[in-house]
Amino acid sequence: MANKKHRKKQKRMEILGSPPGTISISVLSPKPVIRVMAYGPDNYAEATLSNLDSVPEYLAKWPVTWINVDGLGDLNTINRLRDLFNLHALALEDVLSLHQRPKLERYNDHVFVVIQMLEPEPPVQNEQLSIFFGEKFVLTLQEHPGDCLDPIRTRIREAGGRLRLMGADYLAYCLMDAVVDSYFPRVDELGDRLEVLEDRVIGRPHPETVAAIHAVKRDLLSIRRVMFPLRETVNAMIRDGGRPITETTRVYLRDCYDHVIHSLDLLENDRESAGGLLEMYLSSVSNRMNEIMKVLTIIATIFIPLTFVVGIYGMNFDPDSSPFNMPELRSYFGYPAIMLIMAGITVGQLYYFWRKGWLTSDRHDGKR
Amino acid sequence: MANKKHRKKQKRMEILGSPPGTISISVLSPKPVIRVMAYGPDNYAEATLSNLDSVPEYLAKWPVTWINVDGLGDLNTINRLRDLFNLHALALEDVLSLHQRPKLERYNDHVFVVIQMLEPEPPVQNEQLSIFFGEKFVLTLQEHPGDCLDPIRTRIREAGGRLRLMGADYLAYCLMDAVVDSYFPRVDELGDRLEVLEDRVIGRPHPETVAAIHAVKRDLLSIRRVMFPLRETVNAMIRDGGRPITETTRVYLRDCYDHVIHSLDLLENDRESAGGLLEMYLSSVSNRMNEIMKVLTIIATIFIPLTFVVGIYGMNFDPDSSPFNMPELRSYFGYPAIMLIMAGITVGQLYYFWRKGWLTSDRHDGKR
Amino acid sequence: MANKKHRKKQKRMEILGSPPGTISISVLSPKPVIRVMAYGPDNYAEATLSNLDSVPEYLAKWPVTWINVDGLGDLNTINRLRDLFNLHALALEDVLSLHQRPKLERYNDHVFVVIQMLEPEPPVQNEQLSIFFGEKFVLTLQEHPGDCLDPIRTRIREAGGRLRLMGADYLAYCLMDAVVDSYFPRVDELGDRLEVLEDRVIGRPHPETVAAIHAVKRDLLSIRRVMFPLRETVNAMIRDGGRPITETTRVYLRDCYDHVIHSLDLLENDRESAGGLLEMYLSSVSNRMNEIMKVLTIIATIFIPLTFVVGIYGMNFDPDSSPFNMPELRSYFGYPAIMLIMAGITVGQLYYFWRKGWLTSDRHDGKR
Amino acid sequence: MANKKHRKKQKRMEILGSPPGTISISVLSPKPVIRVMAYGPDNYAEATLSNLDSVPEYLAKWPVTWINVDGLGDLNTINRLRDLFNLHALALEDVLSLHQRPKLERYNDHVFVVIQMLEPEPPVQNEQLSIFFGEKFVLTLQEHPGDCLDPIRTRIREAGGRLRLMGADYLAYCLMDAVVDSYFPRVDELGDRLEVLEDRVIGRPHPETVAAIHAVKRDLLSIRRVMFPLRETVNAMIRDGGRPITETTRVYLRDCYDHVIHSLDLLENDRESAGGLLEMYLSSVSNRMNEIMKVLTIIATIFIPLTFVVGIYGMNFDPDSSPFNMPELRSYFGYPAIMLIMAGITVGQLYYFWRKGWLTSDRHDGKR
Amino acid sequence: MANKKHRKKQKRMEILGSPPGTISISVLSPKPVIRVMAYGPDNYAEATLSNLDSVPEYLAKWPVTWINVDGLGDLNTINRLRDLFNLHALALEDVLSLHQRPKLERYNDHVFVVIQMLEPEPPVQNEQLSIFFGEKFVLTLQEHPGDCLDPIRTRIREAGGRLRLMGADYLAYCLMDAVVDSYFPRVDELGDRLEVLEDRVIGRPHPETVAAIHAVKRDLLSIRRVMFPLRETVNAMIRDGGRPITETTRVYLRDCYDHVIHSLDLLENDRESAGGLLEMYLSSVSNRMNEIMKVLTIIATIFIPLTFVVGIYGMNFDPDSSPFNMPELRSYFGYPAIMLIMAGITVGQLYYFWRKGWLTSDRHDGKR
Repeated sequence: MANKKHRKKQKRMEILGSPPGTISISVLSPKPVIRVMAYGPDNYAEATLSNLDSVPEYLAKWPVTWINVDGLGDLNTINRLRDLFNLHALALEDVLSLHQRPKLERYNDHVFVVIQMLEPEPPVQNEQLSIFFGEKFVLTLQEHPGDCLDPIRTRIREAGGRLRLMGADYLAYCLMDAVVDSYFPRVDELGDRLEVLEDRVIGRPHPETVAAIHAVKRDLLSIRRVMFPLRETVNAMIRDGGRPITETTRVYLRDCYDHVIHSLDLLENDRESAGGLLEMYLSSVSNRMNEIMKVLTIIATIFIPLTFVVGIYGMNFDPDSSPFNMPELRSYFGYPAIMLIMAGITVGQLYYFWRKGWLTSDRHDGKR
Repeated sequence: MANKKHRKKQKRMEILGSPPGTISISVLSPKPVIRVMAYGPDNYAEATLSNLDSVPEYLAKWPVTWINVDGLGDLNTINRLRDLFNLHALALEDVLSLHQRPKLERYNDHVFVVIQMLEPEPPVQNEQLSIFFGEKFVLTLQEHPGDCLDPIRTRIREAGGRLRLMGADYLAYCLMDAVVDSYFPRVDELGDRLEVLEDRVIGRPHPETVAAIHAVKRDLLSIRRVMFPLRETVNAMIRDGGRPITETTRVYLRDCYDHVIHSLDLLENDRESAGGLLEMYLSSVSNRMNEIMKVLTIIATIFIPLTFVVGIYGMNFDPDSSPFNMPELRSYFGYPAIMLIMAGITVGQLYYFWRKGWLTSDRHDGKR
Repeated sequence: MANKKHRKKQKRMEILGSPPGTISISVLSPKPVIRVMAYGPDNYAEATLSNLDSVPEYLAKWPVTWINVDGLGDLNTINRLRDLFNLHALALEDVLSLHQRPKLERYNDHVFVVIQMLEPEPPVQNEQLSIFFGEKFVLTLQEHPGDCLDPIRTRIREAGGRLRLMGADYLAYCLMDAVVDSYFPRVDELGDRLEVLEDRVIGRPHPETVAAIHAVKRDLLSIRRVMFPLRETVNAMIRDGGRPITETTRVYLRDCYDHVIHSLDLLENDRESAGGLLEMYLSSVSNRMNEIMKVLTIIATIFIPLTFVVGIYGMNFDPDSSPFNMPELRSYFGYPAIMLIMAGITVGQLYYFWRKGWLTSDRHDGKR
Repeated sequence: MANKKHRKKQKRMEILGSPPGTISISVLSPKPVIRVMAYGPDNYAEATLSNLDSVPEYLAKWPVTWINVDGLGDLNTINRLRDLFNLHALALEDVLSLHQRPKLERYNDHVFVVIQMLEPEPPVQNEQLSIFFGEKFVLTLQEHPGDCLDPIRTRIREAGGRLRLMGADYLAYCLMDAVVDSYFPRVDELGDRLEVLEDRVIGRPHPETVAAIHAVKRDLLSIRRVMFPLRETVNAMIRDGGRPITETTRVYLRDCYDHVIHSLDLLENDRESAGGLLEMYLSSVSNRMNEIMKVLTIIATIFIPLTFVVGIYGMNFDPDSSPFNMPELRSYFGYPAIMLIMAGITVGQLYYFWRKGWLTSDRHDGKR
Repeated sequence: MANKKHRKKQKRMEILGSPPGTISISVLSPKPVIRVMAYGPDNYAEATLSNLDSVPEYLAKWPVTWINVDGLGDLNTINRLRDLFNLHALALEDVLSLHQRPKLERYNDHVFVVIQMLEPEPPVQNEQLSIFFGEKFVLTLQEHPGDCLDPIRTRIREAGGRLRLMGADYLAYCLMDAVVDSYFPRVDELGDRLEVLEDRVIGRPHPETVAAIHAVKRDLLSIRRVMFPLRETVNAMIRDGGRPITETTRVYLRDCYDHVIHSLDLLENDRESAGGLLEMYLSSVSNRMNEIMKVLTIIATIFIPLTFVVGIYGMNFDPDSSPFNMPELRSYFGYPAIMLIMAGITVGQLYYFWRKGWLTSDRHDGKR
């Protein structure tokens, strides 16, 4: 919890203050690890570099070079990248100030895309993935090692796949598609949590359940907040087209766009379900209250009059003082008569309640 | 229930992971059954094929050939179809990954449409129908045998209908129209379920009723989720036009579009009704609670003071010790007097309740 | 009620099934009655025809001919009309399948408009009016005799009105305007019903009132469902223009459009009012509950402690056995003292309740 | 109230029925009073006319002539105006049928604007102001004398103001701006009423408060209904431009547009506040209920067990018959012991309630 | 509170009444303090001026001159500025009538932007910042001294920053960016307040909490009201471009636009959270009520029947008069038997409640 709060504050603060285009390195950010994968139709090369000196070589030799930088904690590396690929200061500022909205910026010879990856384990957290791509290179930057891009690395290593035949724009598409696909399991998991909560709402409603439903709603909202601009980003890539995005890749991007729309659909569905659960919770609670009131009412309305009756014959009026003073107390059948009268009152009341439908339970659902 | 959960998970998962355009066959998918219907203005042919070898013959000979494939469990058949009709890998991936959003893709010489059929029996489930159509052919693929397209098969067999005179685009329109028409009975059934629930809400509200209303809302939502993009799909066919969709067919598509809009109207209506039912449920429940409280209050407020009075005269103060100690107990008319006083209190309270309007029932509706 | 249910089912079903453009006659539909009105600036003719043979004559002779067909139960008549005016099969299908959404279709030499008339008596029901109009004719078709168009017939009969000077498009406009105007009294009536309900909600809230409010909401929704597409229809006539709609008529159509917008405004207003009424109902009910609880609490909390006190002195501890055993019972002022103590408790409690504000009524509104 | 109802009915009815462009005079409408103000940069003239004969003279002599007609009850005057300024029949129909939506119509040589003025005193009522303006004249028509335009008359009378230098379009703008400005005090007053209601909701919630909040909401809605189309009207004047609206006036109209937007903003704010007040009311009511329940529960749960205990020792089992029959009654410390036990029970219950937090009040707000 | 009310009234009133373009000085407004900063790539000058006489000198000498006026209480200064920079009367009216909606107006040789700064301390209040900028100057006007622009002043003083190299349009952008950035801490603080409230809602719900949530909602709404048009303003600067806004500055404005969007996102998030908190509050309150009812019901339903039983044996029927009159009172095991029976009744009831789940607490959340 504390962690979450900390992150949120950090997010909100870091984009303030300093002049635009300022590149400031967070002390907390890990040192960069640079991984290069370069490939052409026939072969590929892969290396972990300690510095960027050999990158121009890769760029010159291979049709497509993918430089991945994990960790943003070194100013030299960032500056070196800027010079190598001619990156704009504002774009680099966006790379370093994590928690940007997904967006696409087009520069002279390259495209800059920011998207948010969801971390695989339960608390919904996102890690920013910055992608620059041009005619012959893809440069990705992220703060922490570990991502959802390993299947793509595997596909590069495998000979004969389509990926090896295509350009850098197709690789960029693959990266985005992998990120988009990583959203589904999280949306799915939230849907599962809602189903569990539905059972709890019907079975035995707790106020905790409300808090849990709201937690799911908040998570859905968090995911939605990164997916909604992502939709716009992918759409902008399709619509604007132009170098370095080829026509072939645009067809694939359209597919990726469909995936985003699809999982937004699922999200909206889950949000409606969550809203419905809250309504069901409230009606379930008010039903319990009803049930409790009914028991109280039946017991109280049966026994309160009877208690009054026995109270009458507990009065101490002196039968000796007057013939009107409670002669019943000395009558031969007084006690059995009064017991019969009270039995009669009880039967009458039960009949009234039965006709009102109060004696049958409202809670069939507990047994379903 | 378990089945539904399984399907949902499957749906969400299968679109993940593998490289785009990958054609993977589900082991659970049934083997394909290929049915060909070919026709011209004057005659028609119909056959169930074991393989696709004779299809080119049909295509060459007949003005329109409709190949229907039930079951997507054989990779060879899929590949054969790709080569025969020059289908795009991404389109085939969509065919195989069921639960796509309805959409339309335009390729060089054919159009690819995905729509969702609703299965006729109660649990709202959809089965994907993929339609490719070009100048002379319509190719439809679905996972399970059994569909809502039999009336169209009958119309092909009947000589002299309009269908026999028109091209493949008109057949594709007819297929879509048949699917759209299959939505009405389901929407209708949900409307009927809401009417039944309305009676239950007014008569005797149960929390089950809330769950049932939410089930209807969920079903309405499921249908809406496939109809909404369907509207866009049909609209795209009308708007873009162009080969192989002729001007004549576009007029008919406009009619189909009206049907989609109409049933979306009915859906929205039903959704508003469902919302209204929930409100009525809540007010009905709170009314019951009111009723119960009123009975409790009347009984308790009448008898609690009386019980106090009889309690007074049950006290054991010793009249012998003091003339102030409960002389009433020995007075000649003590008992009848106290009974009259209590009767007076009761009448006073009943008059107060009657003036407050608590003695008349709030539940006239039960007798309407 | 049964009638309404029947109609709805019918509506939903009849647009299914058969091939598009199929003209099928309902057995329940009444036989057609054909009424012709033809007019020019100087004179007019009017007749009820048994068949359509003389219609071409009218068309040749008069500047404007209005053929009105009440009852759609005869296939011959329909076919004859199709041939006479060159009507499209899909348009005729729409004419026969009642409950179409209002819409406008443009054909080569005529325009086809479908609108819904509201029947004047209380249950909100609509009857479809299909209007075809060309350069020199207006053809209207409706299922039942009796409509809101009589004022227009009167205006045709009167010499010197603008209507006699204008073309068929102006007559079509007048028909649409008359239908639009027929909506106002119904919207008005619903507004009146809401005002009556408002008084009931404040005075004495019943659950019936909720049902009544929902009934009004449903009626508002029904009217809105036909008015919303009507707005689009009128707007399409204004926007597209072109033969046979003249520039002059378009000015008048803009006025008709304003009327539609205006009554949609009133509708939305009434819908907001209905929503507000429901909120007021709920707060009124919860206020009643409050009131009831307060009475119960005051009575119970006053008498329960007193009953305990009198209970104490009803205990049978034997004063003879011990000097500690209830010596009060034999004290000289025991009884009066205990009565005074109880009076003190009561006054204290009443003071507490008075300070809490529970002794003043919350229901000033009942007396407003 | 009756008045309001009457007006509403009138509003809804008068736009029905008669043929379009019919000019019908309401019998209730007062006779017209015609006021002319004419001005140029250097001087001005002002007169109240009994008829329109001298108007052409004014039009010929002065750069700008403003004819204001209070009262629409004379057909001759209306017809005279039509001929003088070449007004369209539909526009005049709009002038006479009060309660039009604000709108702008452009004719050959003049512009027709309908807007609604709010009357200054509390019940939110609007009076229609119809403005026709051309190159050299402004013609305004309203039903009742008395309006918010006097500041403009004063500005005309004052030499040296900008108004005297500008054309008729600028005067029309000034009139509209004055009307727009007259909305602010009303919106402001509604905001004040909401603040008063907020205090009442927190202090002591009554159901009347709900009715009052709804009354404010309804008034906000009424104002919104005339302001929303007004926004469109002003925007249309800016967007379309063209004679007689000069470029200079359009700059001022943009300012007027900003004012409309601004007061719509305030309106929306007030509507959100009203919604929030209703929520606060409901939570305040449910809190009161809670409080009442708590007192009842504490009193009842403390005394009900005690009453049972004293009831035990009020039983009449005969200690002489058996040593088991209530020997406590004769024990030496029986009475004090039972009193101590009951005190112990009470302390235990109070401790339980204190731990539950039921003994501290929830209503700190009452003292804020 | 009074202060807030005063400000609101002031805001609403001051934009009324006087003719458009009137420049009226509020008596309450402080006298102006004029600060000039002028700079070029190599050096800069800074001065606090008593009048505007030396401003033309600065304008002539320096590439960029920024004149900041704190306090709008002197008509001479305003008029002098108008003449110096050729400002439009309507723009100056907007400068003086505080609480304008953020907006952008384009004049021949300069641009006029109004934005609202949020004051840094808790009550959400905004101060208007009016910015005029042309080719070589930026003129800012605000009512009170003290703003969020000091970081920019520092950046001007520092040699070698980008700001010193760029034109007046870049300075204007920097000012706007600084204002936008000043919104984040306020939105952040509101988010923190919501988190605190969330803990209170779950822990112990008070009606004050509802009022506090509504206060946050109102503050969010206030901020939103100035940010929403701000978004449009920045967007208009990007979209329209043109002198004096250079292409380079537009790139930076896009970044500023992203910041606005981002903090609007956060705002919307907070608003959804606030809505969720209200729901949680209501369910928490109804849960407390449930809990209270349960205790009452358990105590009452256990003891009411027992009290009845002991009441029976408190009746004074005379066993001497008849063998039927309460022989139990004299039986040997009468008293222990009746005590056992009552114990049995209690155990039976407790078992019933335990099975109903009423004996376990619903409030686990208190211990989480």
